[in-house]
Amino acid sequence: MKDWIDLRSDTVTLPTPAMRRAMAEAEVGDDVYEDDPTVNALQRRAAALMGKEAALFVASGTMGNQVAVMTHTHRGDEMIASSHCHIVHYECGSPARLSGVCYALVDRPDGLVTAGDIRRLARPEGDPHFPRTGLVCLENALCSGEVAPLEVLRDAYDEARARGIPVHLDGARIFNAALALGVQARQIAACADSVMFCISKGLCAPVGSLLCGSKDFIRRARANRKALGGGMRQAGVLAACGLVALDEMLPRLGEDHENARYLAGQLNTIPGLYAELARVRINMVFWKTDLPRFNSDAFVAFMAARGIKVYGILTDEYRFVTHHGVGRAEIDQVIAALREYAASVA
Amino acid sequence: MKDWIDLRSDTVTLPTPAMRRAMAEAEVGDDVYEDDPTVNALQRRAAALMGKEAALFVASGTMGNQVAVMTHTHRGDEMIASSHCHIVHYECGSPARLSGVCYALVDRPDGLVTAGDIRRLARPEGDPHFPRTGLVCLENALCSGEVAPLEVLRDAYDEARARGIPVHLDGARIFNAALALGVQARQIAACADSVMFCISKGLCAPVGSLLCGSKDFIRRARANRKALGGGMRQAGVLAACGLVALDEMLPRLGEDHENARYLAGQLNTIPGLYAELARVRINMVFWKTDLPRFNSDAFVAFMAARGIKVYGILTDEYRFVTHHGVGRAEIDQVIAALREYAASVA
Amino acid sequence: MKDWIDLRSDTVTLPTPAMRRAMAEAEVGDDVYEDDPTVNALQRRAAALMGKEAALFVASGTMGNQVAVMTHTHRGDEMIASSHCHIVHYECGSPARLSGVCYALVDRPDGLVTAGDIRRLARPEGDPHFPRTGLVCLENALCSGEVAPLEVLRDAYDEARARGIPVHLDGARIFNAALALGVQARQIAACADSVMFCISKGLCAPVGSLLCGSKDFIRRARANRKALGGGMRQAGVLAACGLVALDEMLPRLGEDHENARYLAGQLNTIPGLYAELARVRINMVFWKTDLPRFNSDAFVAFMAARGIKVYGILTDEYRFVTHHGVGRAEIDQVIAALREYAASVA
Amino acid sequence: MKDWIDLRSDTVTLPTPAMRRAMAEAEVGDDVYEDDPTVNALQRRAAALMGKEAALFVASGTMGNQVAVMTHTHRGDEMIASSHCHIVHYECGSPARLSGVCYALVDRPDGLVTAGDIRRLARPEGDPHFPRTGLVCLENALCSGEVAPLEVLRDAYDEARARGIPVHLDGARIFNAALALGVQARQIAACADSVMFCISKGLCAPVGSLLCGSKDFIRRARANRKALGGGMRQAGVLAACGLVALDEMLPRLGEDHENARYLAGQLNTIPGLYAELARVRINMVFWKTDLPRFNSDAFVAFMAARGIKVYGILTDEYRFVTHHGVGRAEIDQVIAALREYAASVA
Repeated sequence: MKDWIDLRSDTVTLPTPAMRRAMAEAEVGDDVYEDDPTVNALQRRAAALMGKEAALFVASGTMGNQVAVMTHTHRGDEMIASSHCHIVHYECGSPARLSGVCYALVDRPDGLVTAGDIRRLARPEGDPHFPRTGLVCLENALCSGEVAPLEVLRDAYDEARARGIPVHLDGARIFNAALALGVQARQIAACADSVMFCISKGLCAPVGSLLCGSKDFIRRARANRKALGGGMRQAGVLAACGLVALDEMLPRLGEDHENARYLAGQLNTIPGLYAELARVRINMVFWKTDLPRFNSDAFVAFMAARGIKVYGILTDEYRFVTHHGVGRAEIDQVIAALREYAASVA
Repeated sequence: MKDWIDLRSDTVTLPTPAMRRAMAEAEVGDDVYEDDPTVNALQRRAAALMGKEAALFVASGTMGNQVAVMTHTHRGDEMIASSHCHIVHYECGSPARLSGVCYALVDRPDGLVTAGDIRRLARPEGDPHFPRTGLVCLENALCSGEVAPLEVLRDAYDEARARGIPVHLDGARIFNAALALGVQARQIAACADSVMFCISKGLCAPVGSLLCGSKDFIRRARANRKALGGGMRQAGVLAACGLVALDEMLPRLGEDHENARYLAGQLNTIPGLYAELARVRINMVFWKTDLPRFNSDAFVAFMAARGIKVYGILTDEYRFVTHHGVGRAEIDQVIAALREYAASVA
Repeated sequence: MKDWIDLRSDTVTLPTPAMRRAMAEAEVGDDVYEDDPTVNALQRRAAALMGKEAALFVASGTMGNQVAVMTHTHRGDEMIASSHCHIVHYECGSPARLSGVCYALVDRPDGLVTAGDIRRLARPEGDPHFPRTGLVCLENALCSGEVAPLEVLRDAYDEARARGIPVHLDGARIFNAALALGVQARQIAACADSVMFCISKGLCAPVGSLLCGSKDFIRRARANRKALGGGMRQAGVLAACGLVALDEMLPRLGEDHENARYLAGQLNTIPGLYAELARVRINMVFWKTDLPRFNSDAFVAFMAARGIKVYGILTDEYRFVTHHGVGRAEIDQVIAALREYAASVA
Repeated sequence: MKDWIDLRSDTVTLPTPAMRRAMAEAEVGDDVYEDDPTVNALQRRAAALMGKEAALFVASGTMGNQVAVMTHTHRGDEMIASSHCHIVHYECGSPARLSGVCYALVDRPDGLVTAGDIRRLARPEGDPHFPRTGLVCLENALCSGEVAPLEVLRDAYDEARARGIPVHLDGARIFNAALALGVQARQIAACADSVMFCISKGLCAPVGSLLCGSKDFIRRARANRKALGGGMRQAGVLAACGLVALDEMLPRLGEDHENARYLAGQLNTIPGLYAELARVRINMVFWKTDLPRFNSDAFVAFMAARGIKVYGILTDEYRFVTHHGVGRAEIDQVIAALREYAASVA
């Protein structure tokens, strides 16, 4: 297991030795009673990082997002979101299923939700045919690897606020977005009433995410987390890893971005393979091939045989994700294998 | 009330004298016990018209559509539909709220859902991030007044069937669509597993719609109708009007289309007002104005003062709907008033 | 159909000639636009009768109750109700299904919900394991044919109000209850924030019920009715019957109660059959038999062969319901047939 | 924190040194991709212990139960359960909220659901007023501390199976129940189609529960877990504790029962305090007092000042729970404090 090079996602990152020590030594209590000091410490730190009053530790990014949807809305409300965002595309349809919330979708190729989209899609009041617009969902970094400009988020938030519509930001990779934009994460978080970020993914903690917002919002979110079965007892063992993750990983997150750019550059030296460098904003590299005999399944198997886990083609391109487990040496191995496969089908 | 000319919608149509007589004389029973002979007769007739095994009388088009969504799906499923269709845009978000069903939306300007859209949006199996694609919703005539070509519907149905996805057709105005296409309504209905059509709207019955499908589907739909509170007792008084509507109104529905074309033509004789004739497929006329002082609210009030009910501007255009209560004489009155208002702001 | 004597329920009542005339002559409009003068008149009258600010016409008692549950609660709330009441026992589980509302059930044999039950079952605040108590549902007359004393309802309402919990009353047969208690219906309605009553059942209108409450409640209920597909267009044809029903049927409703007592008395003259007279509070007669060869299915068939529709055994007793279609002459026919069947198995 | 004696629940148990070591050394992977070897090992072991084909690691007992409800039912179904069971009383109303499932409740003082209850409450088919009975929920040990006899469970399961109704068992404390009954846990699990047990609580792992059932059930449960946001990444750090818990804690669980009996016996030596020994079946002691000046709030504060966490009065009695953190020495401290408080109010 440990020897694989895994380019499928940054969700595969393994806890570091410091995290393992922190887990083993964590002071813990029953978090359902709000008695776990390590969870409480992580929640305070998350709130401060995001510039919000309070935070809640949850089992996953999906749980953080779904608790946010549930807490902001009433059944029958409509939420405005991109059809490409994680909440809509990758979370099992849970806004409808768990919260009875329907979608007004923005279908822009860039994945953004702009102030103009909100103006166009917000429902007028008083027509009995219409659901109430109850939420706007933003995302940064986008799950496509793109990064939304701060002013787009800010304008969207202003538009929503002017209409009394709350805004949730899916910030699963908010620290990657902040790095790419050269701002503090809290400046992005300031464009929403609530924000969720993950300590797994690029930050390498084994499990968990933090939902941040006002004290009242988090109080109600806690009740919704319990309703989903997300109340965990001695969760401090996980939170301890999160505290280490913020110390240990935030300073080095830029390496993943540099490695992604390096990977993209090297990939472009292979005949028939093309990565668009301008799209490498965070730790994701998307690339295409025009080699007619390049076969997705065969390629996955070829790489696996060399100890490298990759996904096959997604729609019409391939994706590699860099993270703590993928340094220059691993990238060079990947490029060598890739070059070999490409040559074999050229 | 009776003297208004009402161009807002064909939902405002009044029952005819023959319908009023039919109501007064209807043989009725308790339809919750399936004991109402007039309801049963209308259901048999509806099923035959649509070429389906069975039918269910429901209180409204919305109820028919929502019962269909509920009957075809499991909670957490995703349905493919146009973001402009009635089920998504005008039914209070009820697929999410009542059935826990989320949307994969097609955002084409023509309002269609094509076989290609289904191929693109149907979810692959086996990825735990994805909801199951549980339904495709088609519509004809579209609630925009457009009419979908039969082959587009047929290809969509074939694509869905090949994937094991059921298809529901919102045929609120299926007879208008059939007229526009020069086909039988059942040929349109053949492009879906279930179809709903309204006996109110252009057919002038006071209340009701019919949901049609297989015997097993209708049996389960009946239980879902009850769960929504749609089980009505001596509903035969309404069904009696439906039977008259099919006799009396189907043969004259073409007049509404001719009147719409006449209205559009006359409207184009007014300087500064423009109706696109090619868009007049059924009984709806959409028009725009470039008169800078043409004011939506003032226009609505001006017409109301002349006994004419119209809607103000929708996004960037106006809509007039013709129906049994709007003949040539009424259209001439409307045009005269419109010409007068336009002149006053020219 | 017209010649059956139907003792199964008062839901089978047929519209009277005056109702049929009223339907045929009703002035109607589009009720989704609140433009139907007859619906508006019935709603005003219903509100006045119940002593509430406003009312909403709905397609059935179930729809009225479910709209009330949806309008009073938030998803995840718990409602306190009797396990024997119509909302819990006979409405398809719709509070959970449509509104995401769970139950705290009172399982008293008398079917009541008392102030003491509310004290015992209302959830304390602040424990994350508990749903919020969002509603108390009362009922009068009970669907068991029993009648709740006014002071029991009043005490329950006071207890709920003191805790800030809204109260809905299912008054499907509120006029029967008022007669049995010797009070005005509005005195019963005064024990709840919202009340639903039916114009079908004993009042003989073909279709419909009225949900009554505060203006704000009814405004929100109207939106929920639309979401369920309960927005009907020219619903005035049904409302017209309701107006007649209130004029024509309220003064004679006592006859149904007298006839029920007469039926029970006559039934007790048949050897082996026993009706408890004290339980005949409204228009329902429950009776048992100790004839060992008395067979439920055979009995139903025997009566049907004599033009009489009855239900077979329910748990351990039989139920007959009197109504406008069952006068003294019909009761005498029923008793004669019953006596004949009983003798045949004695 | 570490020095408190906590009698509120066995959910407060802390991970042992062996668990902390196991966490720190656990081999982990991405469990959303089913790539975590430690999670997989725990799931295999849980399935074997329960005699089921497969198992799924979940974040809490509530999540395990709610995933089971969601996986067994369709929206609108009714589940038969005790009104006192954890799923109904302590899980936020989630069956209704998350799954649209309503309740038919058994309100027996002993908390059992018997074959007779199922016969009485299972809904007949074909009546449109009734929801479908979609699930029976059993529990052992009961959350009241009682233990259901094996034959009661077996008869209930047989009755449900004969009717085609699936059965889920909440076995949060199934090992405590097995000890009390002198049987293997798998004999209890054999009385249900699915069973959930906790590795937190008496088994002392920090977080988690296992849902066990057929392969097909677990496959569908995995999708529902994801929809609730319960998909965790490197969950092996938690699963590692679960493996230790089964090794380390199952052999010593009997001590908690003995300690509970010891605590009850000692408590009975205090004048004015009464514990019913026959009710001490597992690790819970319920006791009452007839000292009129015994004040719940004062008592909680008195104990807290002595380093002992207890709950105040529940309805009309007090509850103490023994576990790995409460040995004889701690019990003696508790008894001494209790004796002191009782004397002070005698």
